Amino acid sequence: MTKPLLQIALDSLTLEKAVADAKQAEDVVEIIEVGTILACAEGMKAVKTLRALHPNHIIVCDLKTTDGGAILAKMAFESGADWLTVSAAAHPATKAACKKVADEFNAANPTLKVKKEIQIEIYGNWTFEDAKEWVELGVKQAIYHRSRDAELAGKGWVAEDIEKMKTLSEIGLELSITGGIIPQDIHLFKEIKNTKAFIAGRALVGSTGKETANAIREEIAKYW
Amino acid sequence: MTKPLLQIALDSLTLEKAVADAKQAEDVVEIIEVGTILACAEGMKAVKTLRALHPNHIIVCDLKTTDGGAILAKMAFESGADWLTVSAAAHPATKAACKKVADEFNAANPTLKVKKEIQIEIYGNWTFEDAKEWVELGVKQAIYHRSRDAELAGKGWVAEDIEKMKTLSEIGLELSITGGIIPQDIHLFKEIKNTKAFIAGRALVGSTGKETANAIREEIAKYW
Repeated sequence: MTKPLLQIALDSLTLEKAVADAKQAEDVVEIIEVGTILACAEGMKAVKTLRALHPNHIIVCDLKTTDGGAILAKMAFESGADWLTVSAAAHPATKAACKKVADEFNAANPTLKVKKEIQIEIYGNWTFEDAKEWVELGVKQAIYHRSRDAELAGKGWVAEDIEKMKTLSEIGLELSITGGIIPQDIHLFKEIKNTKAFIAGRALVGSTGKETANAIREEIAKYW
Repeated sequence: MTKPLLQIALDSLTLEKAVADAKQAEDVVEIIEVGTILACAEGMKAVKTLRALHPNHIIVCDLKTTDGGAILAKMAFESGADWLTVSAAAHPATKAACKKVADEFNAANPTLKVKKEIQIEIYGNWTFEDAKEWVELGVKQAIYHRSRDAELAGKGWVAEDIEKMKTLSEIGLELSITGGIIPQDIHLFKEIKNTKAFIAGRALVGSTGKETANAIREEIAKYW
């Protein structure tokens, strides 16, 4: 049970804003994510720039890959991403294509400090049977979102979310958890053994961003 | 039953290649799509550039939007896209957010020649009940892919694909059809009344691209 990492999701519309936000957060996060919005706005230039500025951070490229897996994975990894998100809704062949590209990168670069990995981002109608298939494919990581409806309705995490995450963890997936993460919620996840990371976006930027990040880190240290 | 349109999907890794391919195809297609790969590689610059170069074509931005719907839709439409793809796996709230942005654009610009629309791109575990919900939301269009497994295995379109498309059409969705489209296959779809467009990529570029496009158009003219 390793200590969960903290990940900042950069979802600004411009690279200039993103590099400023990343710079401010660099001392308090282990993972920097080029969010879907930033990636769609600026393209792979965003990944390349953040890779160059943060050589010692894990860089996630959040494309929520749904098709064209081999090409998108190659593009993201060559641009400097360590981890790539792949939509749970993608066809199994697309997931397999992304995984294959990651494996080939790792085989060709045996000294990589951080291995290339794909993360299944859980969206749509999915089942635990699907999750077992991901593990059988060799996938190690998944991303769990709080129900957006719940979030928009101002509801907190519900027991059903926690139970699903526990089951996914038992199936063998390391989980990154996201959806309005605040320091006060961290204790809710203490029973999820394979918590890989907590992902936050706007909470970690602006004048209170660093303070919030440190508060989350303190909570993590209490429970893991 | 209007005549289906022809759409070129630009999925190159560079904008330079994409603008060349679009220029070659402009006389034989009604719709130019900034494919996911191109959008992820070059960002919204790709949409803006193709919009500027092709003011009289319908421009599709294929983000397969899965989350962050309001922001991505605003970004794509402001960059010049007419239609935006949204993943079937996206949460209903995400689809609704994209639809709302399109509706607001249309209301603010009553003289638009081509109305902003979203297209549900069918991926993942979906049901006809889901499709009815899309129609209830006011969505008019969906994109149907041939099974990738079938395509990779060299299998053609199967009766099950055609039946599903007929049902989707009856539910009230206009369909864009994609997945290794060749002229010889067009007749297969003649019973799908609401065929909005056929989408092809590599088949429409290179030395035989224009010839293939014209052959597809001739087949369309035979059956619609």
